[in-house]
Order: sequence, then C-alpha cells, then structure tokens
Amino acid sequence: MLNIAVIGCGYWGAHLIRNFNNANDWHLKYLCDIDDIHLNKLANQYKSIATTTNYSEILRDKSIDAVVIATSSESHYPIAKDALLAGKNVWVEKPFTQNSLQAKELVDIANKNGLIINVDHTYLYTSSIRKIKEIIDSGELGDLIYIDAVRINLGLFRHNENVVWDLAPHDLSIISFLNPIRPISISAIGNAFYPYSNQKLEEVAYITIRYEDNSIAHINVNWLSPVKIRQIIIGGTKRMLLYDDMQTVEKIKVYNSGVTINTRQDVYDTLVQYRVGDMYSPYVKDNEALATECAHFYDCINNRVDSFTDGSAGVLNVSLLEAAQLSLQNGGKEILL
Amino acid sequence: MLNIAVIGCGYWGAHLIRNFNNANDWHLKYLCDIDDIHLNKLANQYKSIATTTNYSEILRDKSIDAVVIATSSESHYPIAKDALLAGKNVWVEKPFTQNSLQAKELVDIANKNGLIINVDHTYLYTSSIRKIKEIIDSGELGDLIYIDAVRINLGLFRHNENVVWDLAPHDLSIISFLNPIRPISISAIGNAFYPYSNQKLEEVAYITIRYEDNSIAHINVNWLSPVKIRQIIIGGTKRMLLYDDMQTVEKIKVYNSGVTINTRQDVYDTLVQYRVGDMYSPYVKDNEALATECAHFYDCINNRVDSFTDGSAGVLNVSLLEAAQLSLQNGGKEILL
Amino acid sequence: MLNIAVIGCGYWGAHLIRNFNNANDWHLKYLCDIDDIHLNKLANQYKSIATTTNYSEILRDKSIDAVVIATSSESHYPIAKDALLAGKNVWVEKPFTQNSLQAKELVDIANKNGLIINVDHTYLYTSSIRKIKEIIDSGELGDLIYIDAVRINLGLFRHNENVVWDLAPHDLSIISFLNPIRPISISAIGNAFYPYSNQKLEEVAYITIRYEDNSIAHINVNWLSPVKIRQIIIGGTKRMLLYDDMQTVEKIKVYNSGVTINTRQDVYDTLVQYRVGDMYSPYVKDNEALATECAHFYDCINNRVDSFTDGSAGVLNVSLLEAAQLSLQNGGKEILL
Amino acid sequence: MLNIAVIGCGYWGAHLIRNFNNANDWHLKYLCDIDDIHLNKLANQYKSIATTTNYSEILRDKSIDAVVIATSSESHYPIAKDALLAGKNVWVEKPFTQNSLQAKELVDIANKNGLIINVDHTYLYTSSIRKIKEIIDSGELGDLIYIDAVRINLGLFRHNENVVWDLAPHDLSIISFLNPIRPISISAIGNAFYPYSNQKLEEVAYITIRYEDNSIAHINVNWLSPVKIRQIIIGGTKRMLLYDDMQTVEKIKVYNSGVTINTRQDVYDTLVQYRVGDMYSPYVKDNEALATECAHFYDCINNRVDSFTDGSAGVLNVSLLEAAQLSLQNGGKEILL
Repeated sequence: MLNIAVIGCGYWGAHLIRNFNNANDWHLKYLCDIDDIHLNKLANQYKSIATTTNYSEILRDKSIDAVVIATSSESHYPIAKDALLAGKNVWVEKPFTQNSLQAKELVDIANKNGLIINVDHTYLYTSSIRKIKEIIDSGELGDLIYIDAVRINLGLFRHNENVVWDLAPHDLSIISFLNPIRPISISAIGNAFYPYSNQKLEEVAYITIRYEDNSIAHINVNWLSPVKIRQIIIGGTKRMLLYDDMQTVEKIKVYNSGVTINTRQDVYDTLVQYRVGDMYSPYVKDNEALATECAHFYDCINNRVDSFTDGSAGVLNVSLLEAAQLSLQNGGKEILL
Repeated sequence: MLNIAVIGCGYWGAHLIRNFNNANDWHLKYLCDIDDIHLNKLANQYKSIATTTNYSEILRDKSIDAVVIATSSESHYPIAKDALLAGKNVWVEKPFTQNSLQAKELVDIANKNGLIINVDHTYLYTSSIRKIKEIIDSGELGDLIYIDAVRINLGLFRHNENVVWDLAPHDLSIISFLNPIRPISISAIGNAFYPYSNQKLEEVAYITIRYEDNSIAHINVNWLSPVKIRQIIIGGTKRMLLYDDMQTVEKIKVYNSGVTINTRQDVYDTLVQYRVGDMYSPYVKDNEALATECAHFYDCINNRVDSFTDGSAGVLNVSLLEAAQLSLQNGGKEILL
Repeated sequence: MLNIAVIGCGYWGAHLIRNFNNANDWHLKYLCDIDDIHLNKLANQYKSIATTTNYSEILRDKSIDAVVIATSSESHYPIAKDALLAGKNVWVEKPFTQNSLQAKELVDIANKNGLIINVDHTYLYTSSIRKIKEIIDSGELGDLIYIDAVRINLGLFRHNENVVWDLAPHDLSIISFLNPIRPISISAIGNAFYPYSNQKLEEVAYITIRYEDNSIAHINVNWLSPVKIRQIIIGGTKRMLLYDDMQTVEKIKVYNSGVTINTRQDVYDTLVQYRVGDMYSPYVKDNEALATECAHFYDCINNRVDSFTDGSAGVLNVSLLEAAQLSLQNGGKEILL
Repeated sequence: MLNIAVIGCGYWGAHLIRNFNNANDWHLKYLCDIDDIHLNKLANQYKSIATTTNYSEILRDKSIDAVVIATSSESHYPIAKDALLAGKNVWVEKPFTQNSLQAKELVDIANKNGLIINVDHTYLYTSSIRKIKEIIDSGELGDLIYIDAVRINLGLFRHNENVVWDLAPHDLSIISFLNPIRPISISAIGNAFYPYSNQKLEEVAYITIRYEDNSIAHINVNWLSPVKIRQIIIGGTKRMLLYDDMQTVEKIKVYNSGVTINTRQDVYDTLVQYRVGDMYSPYVKDNEALATECAHFYDCINNRVDSFTDGSAGVLNVSLLEAAQLSLQNGGKEILL
C-alpha cells in the first residue's frame, strides 16, 4: 500500500480521485485544490480523506509516496519539480509541460533521484488501444502506410492553450505508441477564428507527421464541430483498421482489404488490384483505463516495471507539440525533427 | 430538341448515356469509344443509337449541337478543343483539363464562338448541395468559420493522376460553390506509397485553403481507406451543418450549436460560452443529379441561362488543383493564389 | 435465347423490363400494360420493343416462351392461369395469388403441362440472403432459436390488401428459405387505423410462427413508420447473426456470442453463462438480385433446374399469409397449420 | 434531511447508494445485504456508512424515514410489507411485486398509514422520456396510432423470472406514462428455449396491448440478441417519433411525416397520400435519472407531491405483467383487462 495525494480537483481530478479511492494498492490521503468550491464538492463525497488548499503541506508529509498533478497545464512543471525535489513520485496530466526543456529537466531530476514519472496518456491504458497495438505488432496489418486521426467536438475553450495543446496530446501519444518509427518532420496548419483573452488561439488545426519509413500520420483536432468524432483509421499493406471510440461496442474493425501489386516482366505497367474481403471486430472487454493505469503506476514504483507513459514518453509528446506549434506559426511549414 | 453525342463509354459514360437517352430535350445520336468492348456493351442496350470509334466522325455531323467528353482526363483538352473549333457546345468531365492554361484557352475559344462549356461538377446538381447552398445563403449559419471535407474509400487507382486530381475536384467544386469568398492560399501534403507505372502518385492527401475572410477549408482525400466516408462539416458563427452523403436519408443535419462571445467591460477575459441546441434535418427530395444537369445544359445552350459549372468554374477548379499539386511537390508549402 | 413479355409496367415492372432487356439469355419481345401512360413511358426508353395493352395478344404469339406477370395482385391468378393454359411458362410477382386454392390450381396446371412457375421472391436471389443460408447450412450458428424480422417504413398504401399481404411475403419467403423446418402454427395481431376505401386494412401487424423444433419466428410489418428498417436477427445456439439490409456495406454480421449451459451433477442449478466474442462481417459481392433471378428462370425452363421459388414455394407463402389473415381476424388466435 | 437505508447491494443497489450518498436531501445511514461479499465491497467505498446483514435492525431504528428495497424480486413484497408496517416510506425496485394482489395490499397499508411508496420505474425520470411526454401532451404528434418498443440484448438470465418480468416492466411503465388511455386487452407470445433450473423461462417474448381508442402497443423483449437495441417508435396522426436510447446524442427524433386522408365526394376512393417532411431532434440535457428520482422521492415524503411512479403505478405495471404471463401460458390468447 502506497500513500498518494491528488492535486487539482476539477473535472478530470474527480475521476482520478474515484479511481485512487477504489484502488487496492493505494491509500488516497489528501485532496488538494486552490479553489475551495472544487475541493469541498469532492470532500463531501469522500468524507474520510484529508483536504488542503496548499500542496506544500502534502510535500512535507513524509508518508506520501506519490502525488497526482491534475492542475491547469502551466502549473504542471513547477508543481512536478517541487514534488520530485521533495522525493515524491509524480503522475502528471497531459500536456506534461509547456515545452520540451521543462520536460527534460523533470526527467533528469527524476532519474537522478530514482523517482517515477507517469504522464497520464490515459488512452494507452484502454483495452481498445492495447488490442490495436497487439494487432499491429502481430504483423496482421503489414507495414503501416498511414494513420488518420480525428478528434473533434464542441469543446471546452481553454484560455491559455490552443486546440493542438488541448486535444492533440491524446492522438500523438496513441500514434507514438502504435507506430514507434522515428518521425522526421511535422507540419501543422490551423485557424484561430475567435479573438479572446487578448490572444488568438487556434480552434481548428490539422497536423501531419512524416516518418522514416515513408508512412504518414494526420491529426484533425477541432473545438468547433457540431458532432463528436473520435476516430482513427490505420492503413496497412495487408489489412486496414478502423477505431471508432464513439461506438459503445465494436469500436475496432479490421478489414481484410487492400491493394495487391503484381509486377510482371512482360508488361510495362505494374498491375494494381483491389482486394476487398471480410471485416471482423475483435471482442474487447471494457475496462476503466484509469483503474488500469493506477495499478500500473503502483507497479512502476513498487516493482520497477517499465512504462510506455514514463517521462521520456512525455518528452516526445511535448517535443511534437512544440514543433507543431512552430509550424502553425509559420503557415504550415514542415519542421524537421 | 438538340442532338448530342457521348464520347467515352466507361463507367461514368454509361450513366451519362442513360440520362441523355431519357432526357426529353435531348436526342442522343451517337455513342463513341475507342475501345470496342466498352462501345458494344452499351450499343447492345441502346440498339437504336449509332456508334463510332472515331469522334471526328461526330464532329463532322452538322446536326450535332453538343458533345459530352467522358474520356480519360488527359484527352479532355484536345477533344474539347477540336469540338469547340468544330462549333459544338461541350460538356467535359472533371478534371476539366490538366492545367489552367489549357482551361483558359478552351474558355476563350468558347467565348469567341458563342459556345457553351459545361464542366461536369455533378455534385452541384444534387438536391443536397443545393439545399446546403440555400441554407448558407439565407444567413442561417452566420459567417463561415471552416469547411471540413472528407472523401475517402478504397478507390480506383489511376495510372496517370494522383488522388488529388481524381477526388478533390468534387470537393473543390462544392466548396467554391458554397463559399464564393476569394481563396488566398492553398497547401497540400500527401503520401505516395506504392511505386507503380514508373511514377509516384499520391494515394493520400490533405489540402488546406485559406480565404480572405479568415475562414479555412480542409479536404481529406484517400484511395486507401477501408471505409467509404463522404462527409462535409461546416462551422458557422450561428449554426453548424453536417452533410453525410453516405446516408440514404437525413444527409443534412443543421445544429443550433455554437459559441457565444460576451465581452464585458468590467472583466479582463472575454466570456466564451457554448450553446448546444436542437438539430434538424431538412427533407430533401431525391433527384438524379445528372438528369437535372442534362436539363440545365439544354437551358444553357437554348435559353442562354448562366451556369455555375461553366468554363470559368472549370478554370477555378483546375487552378486550385494546380496550386495544390505545386504545394504537394514542395512539402506542403503554402502557395499564394 | 428465349422470348419473353412483361405484363404490368408499374414501378416493379420497370425493373423487370430493364433486367430482361439486359439479360443475354432472354429476348424481351413485348411490354404490356392496360394503362397507356405507364406503357408509353417505358416504350419511350425501349424503342425497339413492341407494346400492347392486351395481354391476350401476347399469349397468342407462338414464339413467346414465358410471360412475367407484374400486375396488381388480384389479377395474378387469372392472367397466370390464362398464360399457363396457353402453354407459357410464368413468372409471377408476390403475393403469388390471393388464396392457397388458386395457388395450388396454378401449380397443378403447370405440372400437367410441364411448365415452369417462378414466384418472384426476389430476396432469395440477393447475395446477402444466399450468404446467410450458406452460414446456417454450414452449422455455424448451431440450432436456430428464433428469427426476428422487421420490415417497416412509410409505405405505399394499397387499396385492396393490408400490410401483411403487401410486406410479409418477403419475410415469409426469406424465413421459409432459411429455416425449412415445418411451421406448426401462426398468430397475427395488427391494427387497422385509417378507414378508407370502405374497408379496414391493417397498416401495422405482428406475426409469430412456431416451428416443430421449438424455434420461433416473428415478423413486424408496418406502413406507418417514420424510419425505414429492414432487419433480421437470427439467434442460434452457437452464434447469432444480424442482417441489416439498410446498410450499404456490412449488411451481415455474425456474432460469436451466445449462452453456455453447464450441467453439473453436484449442483442443483444448471449454470447458464454468457459468452461474448468477436464479430465478423463476411464480404458479400453486390449483385442485382433480379439479374440473377432472370438467369435462373432461364435455367429452370431450358435446363430443368430445380428452384426454391417455384410454384410450391408460392403455395407455402400464400398458405402462411392466409393463416395469418385468419388469425388477424380472430384477435391473434393461434392458427394450427 | 431524511434518513434512508439501502437494502440490497447488488448491481443496481450500487447505483442507488451512489446517488443517495450524493443527494443533498438524504442522509444514507445503512447499507444492507444478506451477502457479506456484496456488502463489504460497497462498505469499502463508503467508509462512513453503517452496514448490516439484517434489515430488521434498520426497521427498528426510529430515525430511519425510508428504505430502498433493491433485493431480488421475490423478496420485494415481504420486505416492503415489514417496512410499511414499521412505519417506513418505501422505494421498491421493479417489478414491484410478483402479483397484483400483493401490490394492492402494499398500497392499502401505505395509504392507511400515510406512507409513500415509490416504485423505481427509473426511465420516467430520464430527460428523454420527459421530453417525449411533453411532445405528446402538446398535441404535436396528433392522436397516437401505435407505440412499438424493442428492448433486446444478450442479457442476464434470471433463475426465477422470465424475460417479460425482467425487461417488460420498463417498457410497460414508459408506455403507461406516455399513453394514459385505458388498455383493454393484452396478448403475449414467447419462447422458452433453454431448460434450466427445473423450469422453463421465456427468453424471447412479444407483447401486444390494445387500447380503448383503437391504438396499439407492441413490446419485443429478448435476452438472446447479439445486439443491444433500446428503441421506441411512436406513430401519431400528425407526426412520428423515434426514441433510440442506445444513441449518446440525438436520442429523440421527431418526423414531420405521416398520412393525409382526403375524402372527396366525387370519387369513390378515399385519397391517401404520404407526407414526408423535415426531422428535428430536440436538445435534451443529460441528467442522471436516479438523482432526479431521489430528489422526487424526498419531495413526495416531505412535501406530499404526487408521483406517477407511486404504488398505483406499481399496481398497474404488475397487473399488465400478470395478464401478459397468463396470455403467454395460453398460446398468445388475448386477455381482457
């Protein structure tokens, strides 16, 4: 049993609290938020858990093994740094930090002190993404040609980050997980329509990543869509896959469809033929991704298990966001990585 | 009653032939294809219509008022030019020509000779696109923020044109029709995965267009998708619209959803609030777009009616394709128009 | 090559004419309709085919091998009888006749004269229903527990037959084909809401059939539904199948789901456990069912091939309709067959 | 603030506990279950709430105002009777009791003692069903012609009740709420395929109800469906409505479609014409039905508010189930109510 505290009791914090409270391996000792209203609302539901509006109090508690940082994104870096320097393992919400220098610094501190960083790329703990990873790794899809991700809805405007920093971390973490090939460039193009908060923040953006093996990834993120779409299409040389996260069942469909290339000596043209075949949808047992991630975080600390959502995954995620931001500010210019 | 001939009896030619044969205003006098097999297959169904493998024969027939050119795209320009010079009105399949110089030359010849060019941007003759145009023009959606178009499927590989020239003419024609604001730049990024026919042709591409009024359009075209998606989302400042052409009913949905901006003097921040409301789907009576277009072509010739699919629409379409191609060859560089 | 005539040039007649005109084995010699308007509309499209408003003229033509009867249902019996007595093979639309006595009489006449009757149960010629039959016959689903069919839409009111006689022939033919077990009883309950034409005709009806092997079938037919649903669910002891005819792709889905019964000696209760597994959708190549049926009808006549849509299939279909009608008139009373 | 206890900590009990724990008006004082495992699992999450395996202990506590009975259905009656006789208000899960005599007896005891019975027909507290009720009551649909409900899935087998008693209470409560016209008869037909627990329990059933005003309702309940469908279609003389509870958005669609009857003096036939128009989907704000119901139960007790899920609603529900059961045992015989 390890002791943990959750700093940040907003929408996502509430889910984290519920999961850590239900976890067998964890004792949730503190809830923390600078906003009394958020804090009291949750304190009311979890009467036996201590509360504080000052996270330093938590860091001073020697019995605390780890802290969860679910505050607004600009405070991830300072709180995580404080926590690591106080010898606490940390779980940080996405985006990990606001730039890659900060991210690397946190990883260095953690490494020097033998501490664990978990960046909350929750999707990598869903049964669906795990099943897709398994399908890709088995070679069933052949070589990957493209990954096309759409994450659009009528979303919560942020006052300090654009749609890329808000939504794209999810898809970038998923894509980096599914396709570990080295990305060589990134381009992003978007539109900041509504002027507010004295700044322009893109509400719509399109990101393209090129990979060493000539595959490509594209991410469509949008806060101004009347419909909610959460969809990833993966084109492989052997089979193709559709992941539709808005479905309650049959989220994954694998299509035995593709292209057959026949090269014949006696003809000038390569013969390109389509192949359309059966589709199947693997049964995936529903899990609550956060519960799986809580158990995994315990394993990382207690059993030194390797994680694919560790600090270095966070560094990669933030580096891609940073490069996308640079491209966005340069009219979609391709940024080499 | 005007006399017409269809040159090119492939997949689309068969639809054109059926429609001109059924049209009250047209007498379909010839079917023409250089391929005997295509020609005979249709001749068999339309026993009373003359056939020829040589289109010059048709152009020499003084009674012919117009010709339909549904051949492969590289022959559109030479055949259309011959036809116009022979005094025939022409209906040309998309893409109109292979570059904008050719397109402009054809328009010049037609204008000088008082002849009509109809570029077959069929979608503009569907009840759905007409209804969407009507909704936009009524001001119901407010100002347009973005148009996001997806046209993907497991498609027919072309041996001489990439997915942009094959599929994007449809969306470019729809977008130009719906949003007549002047485009200021275009970017395109894609992937040519399969090497064939001694050349690389993109099978996947993403096109972004910026407009004078700060709106944006994005087109996702893909020949390698396991699922067929034909969808356009239009974000307006007042309402938003979804057009899903794969639905057999309720293709258009209008969402009373959006963003409300409140600027208050006494607060630093602009208040951005979401508004989610009812959705409605206007009833749209099914029509066969080609039948409507055939009747319209007759009107253009006989009654000198103006058309939004005339030669100049073809010039715009080809100019956008040309610029997208240039961007594609330059890593997604933004091309000013 | 056999000579054929189509009697009845309404909505469905037009499809029959198109298919027989395109069929290699058939020469379509006459179009016939008592209504000049219907007749001329089609004559205009098929300029080389003779027309008549009097079917007797066709029956007198010695060169005619078969006639298609696509007239309103009350005239099926007299025209089919005349045609058979004139030595013609007949293709009759559904419902075959208005009662089983008529149906049996036609079968007798055909048998005595060595003539073929094809009852146009078109669904049995679709790739989808054939594929489902193949799946059932392979034993993949195990024993059938139930078939649940829904065929509802905003439909064409008939002035002389209720929704059961209009829509249920389709499902009854499909169910009889898929599950050839002997039905033992039928019940039907419905609602005739709108009084018109001096009679009450059910617009909504629910039919239940019990089979010898304890399986059950249920058919929901409705002319007053705002949405169009054409769906059949088949529950088997091993797997379950969903057929959704409104989908353009993936019409058939097979679910590796079901119930596992474990009977253990040492426990009182039977253990019933659910099993949820993968789903797959077999690729089914689109065909035009009518084209397949035209070719089959030729085979039946020319090559004496057996048919599952012959006169006896028509007799079974009409017998089930007749019993359903009797039940309907008796408050849903179970009618033994 | 009123004190309450939840008796029965199974799947549904857990939801009730969560809601009463979060409710402002309620103090949840006890959790009770005869099964230690169920009890401890929840006790672990709600550390400050007392637990007991003996509900008599709760009934003896004078401070308790109400008890929730979420045990298996055969124990509803005895526990509810004990609770009412102990002067407690009761909330009872569906089905209220196992027969209408028990239901009436409980209502009598409650009435004599001025106690409130709430039967947990949860659907009547969803925003969707409330919105549909509002639409019907406004007269927008015209007169009701039929209600067609489908509630099928791969369900939990019960060892002591069939699919009618398990699933149909939901639809019967919804239909009784939406259409308060007096039912005049009920018919039910079903299939008990799997023999287990020494008895046969129907896994598939079809129920039809006839109403005084010539409208009809049909309910399809099924434990053996590979797909989960929760759908109600309502046909009215003016408009038609589709409620699809499996959708996450746009659960309700209202179709401006229907039938127009023109009676003309000079023609023999009534002219029946179809009218197909726009569809709209009213925005319905998500609520948690149980939270609304908890607040309502407090109002019923504290403010003597009338309820449409009171004991008499429970009596009606059980009476319909009872009659359906009788019909089921008599081959679908129509049972007069």
